[in-house]
Amino acid sequence: IFPREVIRLVSPGTVIEPGLIKNEKNNYLVSLFIHENTAGLAFLDISTGEIGVSHFNDNEFHNRLNAEISRLHPSEILLPESIHLPFAEQYHVTSLQDWKFELGRSEQLLKTQFHVSSLDGFGLKNKPAAVAALGAILGYVKESDPQALALFTDLNFYAIEDHMVLDEATRRNLELTETILKVSEAGSLLGVMDKTRTPMGKRMIRRWVNQPLIHAGEITERLDAVEYLLENGLDRLELQKQLRSVADIERIINRVVAQHAVPRDLVALRETLEILPVILKKVSGHIPLLDRETGAMDDCSSEFMLLRESIAEDPPATLAHTGVIRPGYSSELDEIIQSTKNSRDYIANLEKVEKERTGIKTLKVGFNKVFGYYIEISNSYADQAPEEYIRKQTLVNAERFITPKLKEYETIVLNAEENIHAIENRVFKEICAELKKSSKKLLAASRFLGTLDVLASFAQAASENNYVRPKLSEDKHLMIKNGRHPVVEKTRVDISFVPNDTVFANGDNIQVITGPNMSGKSTYLRQVALIVLLAQIGSFVPADAAEIGIVDRIFTRIGAQDEIHAGQSTFMVEMIETANILHNATDKSLLILDEIGRGTSTYDGLSIAWAVLEYIHNHPRLKSRTLFATHYHELTQLPDVLPNIKNYNVAVSEVDNQVIFLHKIVPGGADRSYGIHVAQLAGIPGPVITRANEILAQLEGQSRQLELKDEASHPTQMALFTQDSPVLK
Amino acid sequence: IFPREVIRLVSPGTVIEPGLIKNEKNNYLVSLFIHENTAGLAFLDISTGEIGVSHFNDNEFHNRLNAEISRLHPSEILLPESIHLPFAEQYHVTSLQDWKFELGRSEQLLKTQFHVSSLDGFGLKNKPAAVAALGAILGYVKESDPQALALFTDLNFYAIEDHMVLDEATRRNLELTETILKVSEAGSLLGVMDKTRTPMGKRMIRRWVNQPLIHAGEITERLDAVEYLLENGLDRLELQKQLRSVADIERIINRVVAQHAVPRDLVALRETLEILPVILKKVSGHIPLLDRETGAMDDCSSEFMLLRESIAEDPPATLAHTGVIRPGYSSELDEIIQSTKNSRDYIANLEKVEKERTGIKTLKVGFNKVFGYYIEISNSYADQAPEEYIRKQTLVNAERFITPKLKEYETIVLNAEENIHAIENRVFKEICAELKKSSKKLLAASRFLGTLDVLASFAQAASENNYVRPKLSEDKHLMIKNGRHPVVEKTRVDISFVPNDTVFANGDNIQVITGPNMSGKSTYLRQVALIVLLAQIGSFVPADAAEIGIVDRIFTRIGAQDEIHAGQSTFMVEMIETANILHNATDKSLLILDEIGRGTSTYDGLSIAWAVLEYIHNHPRLKSRTLFATHYHELTQLPDVLPNIKNYNVAVSEVDNQVIFLHKIVPGGADRSYGIHVAQLAGIPGPVITRANEILAQLEGQSRQLELKDEASHPTQMALFTQDSPVLK
Repeated sequence: IFPREVIRLVSPGTVIEPGLIKNEKNNYLVSLFIHENTAGLAFLDISTGEIGVSHFNDNEFHNRLNAEISRLHPSEILLPESIHLPFAEQYHVTSLQDWKFELGRSEQLLKTQFHVSSLDGFGLKNKPAAVAALGAILGYVKESDPQALALFTDLNFYAIEDHMVLDEATRRNLELTETILKVSEAGSLLGVMDKTRTPMGKRMIRRWVNQPLIHAGEITERLDAVEYLLENGLDRLELQKQLRSVADIERIINRVVAQHAVPRDLVALRETLEILPVILKKVSGHIPLLDRETGAMDDCSSEFMLLRESIAEDPPATLAHTGVIRPGYSSELDEIIQSTKNSRDYIANLEKVEKERTGIKTLKVGFNKVFGYYIEISNSYADQAPEEYIRKQTLVNAERFITPKLKEYETIVLNAEENIHAIENRVFKEICAELKKSSKKLLAASRFLGTLDVLASFAQAASENNYVRPKLSEDKHLMIKNGRHPVVEKTRVDISFVPNDTVFANGDNIQVITGPNMSGKSTYLRQVALIVLLAQIGSFVPADAAEIGIVDRIFTRIGAQDEIHAGQSTFMVEMIETANILHNATDKSLLILDEIGRGTSTYDGLSIAWAVLEYIHNHPRLKSRTLFATHYHELTQLPDVLPNIKNYNVAVSEVDNQVIFLHKIVPGGADRSYGIHVAQLAGIPGPVITRANEILAQLEGQSRQLELKDEASHPTQMALFTQDSPVLK
Repeated sequence: IFPREVIRLVSPGTVIEPGLIKNEKNNYLVSLFIHENTAGLAFLDISTGEIGVSHFNDNEFHNRLNAEISRLHPSEILLPESIHLPFAEQYHVTSLQDWKFELGRSEQLLKTQFHVSSLDGFGLKNKPAAVAALGAILGYVKESDPQALALFTDLNFYAIEDHMVLDEATRRNLELTETILKVSEAGSLLGVMDKTRTPMGKRMIRRWVNQPLIHAGEITERLDAVEYLLENGLDRLELQKQLRSVADIERIINRVVAQHAVPRDLVALRETLEILPVILKKVSGHIPLLDRETGAMDDCSSEFMLLRESIAEDPPATLAHTGVIRPGYSSELDEIIQSTKNSRDYIANLEKVEKERTGIKTLKVGFNKVFGYYIEISNSYADQAPEEYIRKQTLVNAERFITPKLKEYETIVLNAEENIHAIENRVFKEICAELKKSSKKLLAASRFLGTLDVLASFAQAASENNYVRPKLSEDKHLMIKNGRHPVVEKTRVDISFVPNDTVFANGDNIQVITGPNMSGKSTYLRQVALIVLLAQIGSFVPADAAEIGIVDRIFTRIGAQDEIHAGQSTFMVEMIETANILHNATDKSLLILDEIGRGTSTYDGLSIAWAVLEYIHNHPRLKSRTLFATHYHELTQLPDVLPNIKNYNVAVSEVDNQVIFLHKIVPGGADRSYGIHVAQLAGIPGPVITRANEILAQLEGQSRQLELKDEASHPTQMALFTQDSPVLK
């Protein structure tokens, strides 16, 4: 019978408090359902209103599911308690009872949520796993924060196949959004490309970088927009200056809808809506990609008018204090403020009045929580206090008094304060309810501003770093002229970056790259992958020219982190990743293979590397564009027998025993590796270096070149890989 | 003139809200000051009251400072804005104006804080950098949360040299508190050792694991305690059962002192204090290490009595609701509750009474925020409502009424509620103030419980896993009989773990270990390091017997993570870490070197590995106990020329072309590496495996054994390293 308040249940995926989530990242809640060979994945961001669902049913759905989760990097994953997913364990997993994924319940929840009688219109026909995942996630939000359901009005079904697939290792190896060692954004590709000015843009550019496109039309639309903003540089600078004043209206609107908004939020929204028409006017009609966004909105001037009229110029940040509503908006409020004006004036003037009346210069009027308002007189004048003063408190240096009249006015002021507070809260809620009606339009405006911000960011990066517009095609072509590594060229200001060409043409699809450590092999490999990726997110690229046959998937096999206690050695990890590539790559994939075979002894490793290259070269499903860096100089013999392989090495200049790495990739194989030189640079003690050189000289004197050509010249052996070879199965 | 509230400033290092910090970890705030060749480091945990300060002035202070910060893993680091520390960047750095580290200001703050007139008593004489760091950290806390200063009554100056040094790479490589790949505690050494039952114990065991001891006396004291608890297993089980009911009183006491405590906290404290005497009685007199802790406390029975008398049996969690204070404790409270009893009873009985009187079965009494209490009658009976009922609200199915009498009692009840709330809050604050007086004693009790918990945890781990007490000495001895990897033996339940012996005796100090991948080389290397570390944190060890000459520092050079954009290749990182080891290791260090030289081409790497081993073998400062795993089978020739090196390899059984790794370390060198076998296990396609085997057969047929013995048999060359060699400089 006694009253109780309902408290919002909070979990990592349903947090919306501004201090607890990051502005620059989406905070995704993900739900997974797996049944036999199909899986459904639903995700949403309760702080922005984004919701999506996808469906997996191909052979390698575990791989793709894993890749998609690594893209979303959710702060919480919902799973039926009967399903155990090892790769989900690195996230915060919330197990739900299985019935919460039940199909009938899910369908009902979805129909209610989206006000439809069939789910087919959302592309969910015959995708029960997707429906189950989506139902569970909505049910979960409903339980934890029912208000928030109002945010999700539109559903986006997407197919993983519509985007480039990037597995977790590749994301990490290419350092797309954070560096490997420091896990920081600075030094990542995103760190270079992100010139966004708004929180929406910052989240969107992260999504774009994580999800390259594979349809030429979509990519071209983005490139056209970037080109326009690059060519109209002054307009872009003006726009970016205006974007700087744009607030995180995406999250603000969602707080308004969820009834968590505070006055500070509406002020920020007002400031943004004031700029919106100016921005709209400047871009409309010039950029088709943006014009499409603006179709669902107007310039939001009526919402701006409401906010201008109703919210005070500079209100307190939260509803805990009064002064939120602008005078003139609520007559009820104005009246009560007016009616207490006399009492306020009386208290405000009291010090001056009483000082004059009593002639006591040290007289002060103050306030504290225990006694309320009081009149303070220092000890030396205390005996001159007028008769009607009532002593209330004695301090070391002063006495404090009240008067009946002061207390009377105090009561009026304090009571009025309480009333004003209550009315302001109510009026504020009414304003929010009014805004809620425009939420769809406002969210479209937010999306428009975010998209513009990202496109302008791409244009700025292109302008500052001399990027060029890539040409895209559907074939297996790849031509990069004077390509640069977008991150390394920025971070190493002490040296000038050496650009390199990359060409796969005339059927060539494999480059074997030899050369010493520290010479830039790894940088070159990553640079090619990043240029392709940049092109496919719709950005200009760091090169003098680039023609790119669209890539369906980038695979990388670089470095390794040991997972020791699980019993996998570095080499095992290396081989598992290599096997994954050989099984899943296609002739449209790009393969970046760094030092395959390094994890085992020399001859074993060399044999494996050799066989892997042959396989990629010969298997009809593969023939992928491949960059293969290696320490095995013996592999430079491969082009003699495998026509589509070409040798490259990193040029080195040796003058007076001084080794200079030229960082230039040139045709042909390398012959030395300069490992001891690197050891010296690293600070290995002098005697160790001297000794190592002695030992090396001896080894080289003794060994003779391994005669692998013997094998290559056996035409009978090569015949294995032409017709009925097991490779072709 | 109008009132304003002071809000607590919160930063990552000064958070105390229970939901925002982890129970199992300390939340450290660190302050650093560096001047020329000296550095001061102060740290504190505002949630537990721990505070410490240290001073660095040796040659390699950057290394040691780095290692110490990595041990503390602070959530925030304070730095003067003029100082830039690259290795601090992975943490949350707060730059303070330089004057906040000013010496005079710092000394003044410290003297005021600790009520002393000189800082010498704290060991801070002639350590201005330490004083500056400490002053800045206290000043920072004072600004953000002045109340919290009351927590820090005792200062602990500690010298880094009193503990084993573990640099960041070694902590990570040995997976002390988290695994490398998943960054989770499960699978780490802590995951195996942590059987603690209390949050204090959980934090303390993490500190112990991160900070092994090097003084035999301290280690022995812990081992004695573990032995007692192991031998008295039933007592220990009983104690651990009781510890399970112990709350996080360390943080509770600190919330009490900082005036943030809630009723739930005091209930938890009460439950803990109820158990304390029982625990004390059981252990006192048996464990010298614990008896020392209990010297500063008693059984806290007076504090328990206070809590039992004052706090309700099952109060609400927070002060937002009433019912916190136990009836009988405050007569003021009891009176007001009694005086409103009639009104409460009236409302509570109203439904029953009115139902009977009117004969309306659907009559209900309810409450809502807008109308307060009301009487609800369903539409079908609404016309039978008595005359004196006043209609207030019309619902779809019912009418709601009030009566003047109901409203009268409602006013009494609601007003009383407000009064009760105010009085309860006041009384609660008084109880907290009373407890605050005992905070030092209560914190000692908390420390006692935490220490007991960790020691019992060690005993339980020893009991469950068959650990044995290690013998410690100050010499360079190392003997482990049937040692096991403490984590791997637990996590791989599918296979039985193969134990291995480790012996460094008769001047031997280097083991060269060859053997195929996946055979357990890496596990063996780490196992030796972990057994030494366990012994030096005072734990029993996974072996049949162990004699350990105390190690001053464990160095590891294992695996590598590329830091690509910084322009450092894997091999550069490998060489920098190796150089660090060669420069800083001593004859009391333990070196774990896995595949030195792997990152470059074969001959370069082999030469470097060879020269590094010679250096460790011959340099008088080094001669460290060293485990060196390698793929270079050529290195097995070393013992022929360097007497203190011994060869070991991992036994392999080959039956019918099936390879079985026996995981047994045996004397002698290996001859094959089985890399292709691993590739097959990893799922590399069959045709690739077949082809790799063909290539391998050819390579092996062609190559002849490299004749490095030529070199070894030159006595003139070896003479280089005996007397006036550059190595000896």
